[in-house]
Parts: sequence; C-alpha cells; structure tokens
Amino acid sequence: MIDNRTDTKCRIAVDAMGGDFAPKNELLGAVQAFNQNRDFELILVGDQQKIKSVAQSENIDISSFSIHHASQVIDMYDKPTDAIKTKQDSSLVVGAKLVREKKADAFVSAGNTGAMMAASTLIMGRIEGVSRPTIGASFPTEKNKFCIVFDAGASVDSKPQHLFEYSVLGTIFAKEIYNQPDPTVGILNVGEEESKGNELTFAAYKLLKESKLNFTGNVEGRDILKGKVDVVVCDGFVGNIILKFGESVLTFLRTRIRGYAEKGLINKIKALVVRSVLKASLSDMDYQTHGGVPLLGVNGISIIGHGSSTPLAIKNMILRAKEMYDKKLIHKFENALKDYAVKK
Amino acid sequence: MIDNRTDTKCRIAVDAMGGDFAPKNELLGAVQAFNQNRDFELILVGDQQKIKSVAQSENIDISSFSIHHASQVIDMYDKPTDAIKTKQDSSLVVGAKLVREKKADAFVSAGNTGAMMAASTLIMGRIEGVSRPTIGASFPTEKNKFCIVFDAGASVDSKPQHLFEYSVLGTIFAKEIYNQPDPTVGILNVGEEESKGNELTFAAYKLLKESKLNFTGNVEGRDILKGKVDVVVCDGFVGNIILKFGESVLTFLRTRIRGYAEKGLINKIKALVVRSVLKASLSDMDYQTHGGVPLLGVNGISIIGHGSSTPLAIKNMILRAKEMYDKKLIHKFENALKDYAVKK
Repeated sequence: MIDNRTDTKCRIAVDAMGGDFAPKNELLGAVQAFNQNRDFELILVGDQQKIKSVAQSENIDISSFSIHHASQVIDMYDKPTDAIKTKQDSSLVVGAKLVREKKADAFVSAGNTGAMMAASTLIMGRIEGVSRPTIGASFPTEKNKFCIVFDAGASVDSKPQHLFEYSVLGTIFAKEIYNQPDPTVGILNVGEEESKGNELTFAAYKLLKESKLNFTGNVEGRDILKGKVDVVVCDGFVGNIILKFGESVLTFLRTRIRGYAEKGLINKIKALVVRSVLKASLSDMDYQTHGGVPLLGVNGISIIGHGSSTPLAIKNMILRAKEMYDKKLIHKFENALKDYAVKK
Repeated sequence: MIDNRTDTKCRIAVDAMGGDFAPKNELLGAVQAFNQNRDFELILVGDQQKIKSVAQSENIDISSFSIHHASQVIDMYDKPTDAIKTKQDSSLVVGAKLVREKKADAFVSAGNTGAMMAASTLIMGRIEGVSRPTIGASFPTEKNKFCIVFDAGASVDSKPQHLFEYSVLGTIFAKEIYNQPDPTVGILNVGEEESKGNELTFAAYKLLKESKLNFTGNVEGRDILKGKVDVVVCDGFVGNIILKFGESVLTFLRTRIRGYAEKGLINKIKALVVRSVLKASLSDMDYQTHGGVPLLGVNGISIIGHGSSTPLAIKNMILRAKEMYDKKLIHKFENALKDYAVKK
C-alpha cells in the first residue's frame, strides 16, 4: 500500500499488466514519460515479482517508481463486468480503487477496454451531473488542429441528454487540452439541416441550441477531417465505427503502398519517398500521438489504451493523464455541467 | 416522347439538368460512354433548347442521342418530396417516369440526391419483397476488391427486416457486378461478438443467421477497408456517415501533402512523387471510378451521382447502368428476395 500523500504532486497509477506486451511496454513507457517530466509520482500496479523480474531481464530502471501489488490479471478474453467482480485483485480493479481511495489521481491502462470502462465507471463513480461516461477520439484535420468525437464507444443507444453531457465534457477538453478558446460543437448527422436525422439528433439539436454551448448545428461525416468544428457528438455506436474506420485508414494506405512498391525497383524507391512524406504529414493520425482515449465523466482521470500499445503510446497516455490533472479537468467538468445547462 | 422499343437494346435516360455543371458534364459524359460502348440507346432528359445550345457552343456531338424534353429543373435547394410533386415536368421526375412507363430501362442523375431517391422510389415503385430501397457505397480494400456498404443513406431508423433485405440486394450486386462467387455478409457493429451492439443489430443478427445468406457475423469499422467481407449492412444513418467520412479521406490527404509541399523545393519534388504514387495506388478510392451509387430495390435501374460529377463520373454511371441491365439485376433481385429468406 502506498503512503497517504503529503504534497499535491500528481500520482499516476499505471496498469503494468494490461496490454499485449505487458509489463515490458508499460515499464518502458513509464521510464520514457519520467525522463520527459519528473514532476509526478508513478505507481506500477501489478504482479510485483513479474514487474521486477522483467525490469531486471530487460534492464529497465524502475527505481523511481513504486509498485502496488495486484495478484490477478484481467485479459482480453474476460467478460468486462464479470471480470471486475470476480477478479477483485486484478491490476485493473486495484488501479481504479487507488483512484477511488484518493491514493492516485489518475489511472492508465492498455488492458481490456470494456473492463477498464466498467472498472472506472463502477469503482471511481461518475461526476455529479454525468449520466454516462464517454470516450473521446481525436481526429487529425485539414486545419491542423484536432476534432474530438464523443462518444467513441463507451455506450450505445444514447439519449439526447447524453449528447448534451458529451458536448459539455468535450468543450472543456477541447478548451483545456487543445487550447481552443471557445470550442464549437456539432451533432454528427446525415445532413446539415435541422430537419435531417433521426429521433436522437432532432431532440439533441433542440437541447444544444438552448444551452450556452457554442453549438453550430449538424455536421456530416466529411466534416470531421475537414475540422469544421472542434467537438463532434454522436451515439457511441456511430462514434466507435468512425473511430475504428479512421484508425484503419493508415493501415490501408501502408498496404496499398507496399503493393505498389512490389512492382519494381523504381516503385520501391518512390514508395520510400511516399512513406517518409506520409510519416511527416500524418504524424497526428498515429494513435501513439495520443497514446489512448480518455474516459470522461468518471470521478478521476482514466485513460484507456490500445491492447497493442507501444512504449511511446504508454508514455503519451501517462503525460496526458498528468496534463489533465495539472489543468484540474475533473473540477472543471463538474462546474461546466452546471454552467452550460441553460442559455439564459 | 420517344418511340416504343422495337428491340431489347438497353435504353438509358440521363438527367441532363442534374448536377452542378449540367448540362455540359452530362453531355460530355454521355459522349464518353457512347464512345466506349455503342450497344445502347441514350436519352437526354431536360430542356431541349438548353441542351442543344450547350452542345453547339461546347462543340459536343450529341447526334447519336435522343432528347426527351422536360421544362423544369429540381435544384439542390428544393425539398425532395415537395419538389417531385410541384415540379412534375422536371428532368428528374420525367426521367423516373420514362422508366416506370417502360420507355427507358435505367435512369442516371447527378441532381438533388434526396429528390432522386424519392422520385425513383415513388415513381418507379419498389420490387416485390423490398420494404425500403437502399444505396450501396463501394469502398476500396486492402484485398483489392470492393466492400459494399448498404445502406449508405437512403433512410434512417431501419428495422432488422430492412437489414436482411439490404443483405440480399447487396449479395446479388456483389455477385453480379463485382464477380464475387459467394459474397460474404457482415453486420456493421461495435464488436464482433453476437452479444455486442444495439437492439437493431441483435435482431438483425438472428434474422441473417437463419437465412441462406453467406452471413459471417458482426464486423467492425476497421473491417471495411480490410475487406473482411464483401457486403456490410447497417442503418443508413451510420452508412451515410461512413461514406462521407471515407470520401473525405482523399481530400484530407491532398491538403496535408499540399501543406508539406509548401515547405520548400525538396518537399515540393517529394510531394509530386507522392501524388503520382497515391494516384496509381488509390485509383479505386476515387468516386469517379463508380460514378455514382446505385439505388437498389426500386423497380428499375437508378443511379445517383455527386452534384459535382465530372464527365468521367457521368460516363461510369451510364456504363454501370448498362451493366446492371445486361446482367438482369432487377429480375435477379426479385428472385433472390424469395430464395434467401429461410434457411431450410
């Protein structure tokens, strides 16, 4: 058990057992984060012996971190809600508990996404005024700023009130993390007109129009990469499909360029140029830039990573968690949910 | 009025007034199609005088085509269902009527998308067994074959039965047009497990599992470009957003590469290489390849194009219409809806 805090240094718990390459990538990512910014405490949550032995065999210096032992692991095949009940001593449950017990300010995991959402929501609890936590997915845009889509898959079959809440949480996130002074919000829809869409979008449109949010109306699928607005809200079913489709674009491009390169020496050389240019121009399209997606609306900082997270991704997840702490996002969410509700 | 047919040559009506660059692009596209394949009759529907004067001023030889006069035009700002009632002599309504009256086998338009859907559905009518017509959007894949997504926006709030019908129409389309011997069908969802999704996907899963379709289960957003299945079915709300998001990827890439090129001479030269490689590797990502999207389930061939359709896009829409006629797709749809319904 770690000691109770004596200062206000940010304490970040990292699920050392989550992810396909745990604990190695987690340890490497933690070290990378710490090398960049030493102004926080890092707690590795997981099997103490395994963490130590991997650190030793891989020659990773984890002496700056504390270890909080957890004997179990929730894997990718575990059913989320069952697992967090039956595996009470798993790194994922224990990490979320550290936040609930105010022994950590943030929890970062590249483990089972569903279990991380369930653990964060059920154990940390929700911020007052939030009916459903939401995942934000950041898309690169033509305008070289990010467009964040909420909800990118925390839940499906959402109600208009949920879209309103996503809009508030998203507005604060875009303002604080992406430095947008007065973030614009759009509802993802099949057309721009108020009359377009389905039952959910009609009702959400009314709600957002009456709020104090900088709501600009409906946006279409093409407007995300265009960067037409800073925050896009939609049901998690749609958001999740768009997120995964978007993530597959780079893989698709790589496959096609590989196919091109295989057609001869000249092609091979050209493909090398293409790869370097795309790498330089599309760096913000790489999920590693963000590391993971934040789960907003829970009473603590929760960042969810890809199972296949690289050390770089883990590092960026940790630094994002620290940024959210430093900028007092949880506190700002609480206030915003009250402030933005009615227009006058 | 054109004469009643004396042979079985395919007769394609082209909305000469639809599209942002009508009638010029329509006439140029018609000529291009005819230069490639003369085995069909082409009827230009629209303002006779305007068609003739543009043909003359632009030096386009339209002597091989007949003109069917229509005095009105439905524009992009007209409300679809109102417009097809109030503008009975519009090129869009008249073209659809030619199909209903068996004076044409297909109708192609780059005009108001909503009005084209409404006109095709209400005037041509639906094939027996179809509750809702559907739009199919073809996506390029890593496997270098197409994945078609139904419904890409003909309607929203669909029922499980609609997804079943989309699957049948899509299967025939993939078999006949993309030469897939036994097309696989997947339901677009937030996870692969049968238990994932929303009410619509749960019920549709059961329906498809019991049918004779080659249903392989749920697919995710990333599986479209991967080419995991040949036909993906979903509600038109989701499909439309994915279609428009997908179409915006090329524009996004071009903008980023332009930004890269502006940073110096070396970059400019590298960007030239990138553009040529992407053009060669992603040609099937260009909407012009397909020309437009087919509206399936109506009692006739209906192809809907982009407002900004180029002559190449118009040409490909016409040739796609001809292919659908030659392969007797409407007839095959009718039979398939009966054949695929129950598994045993």
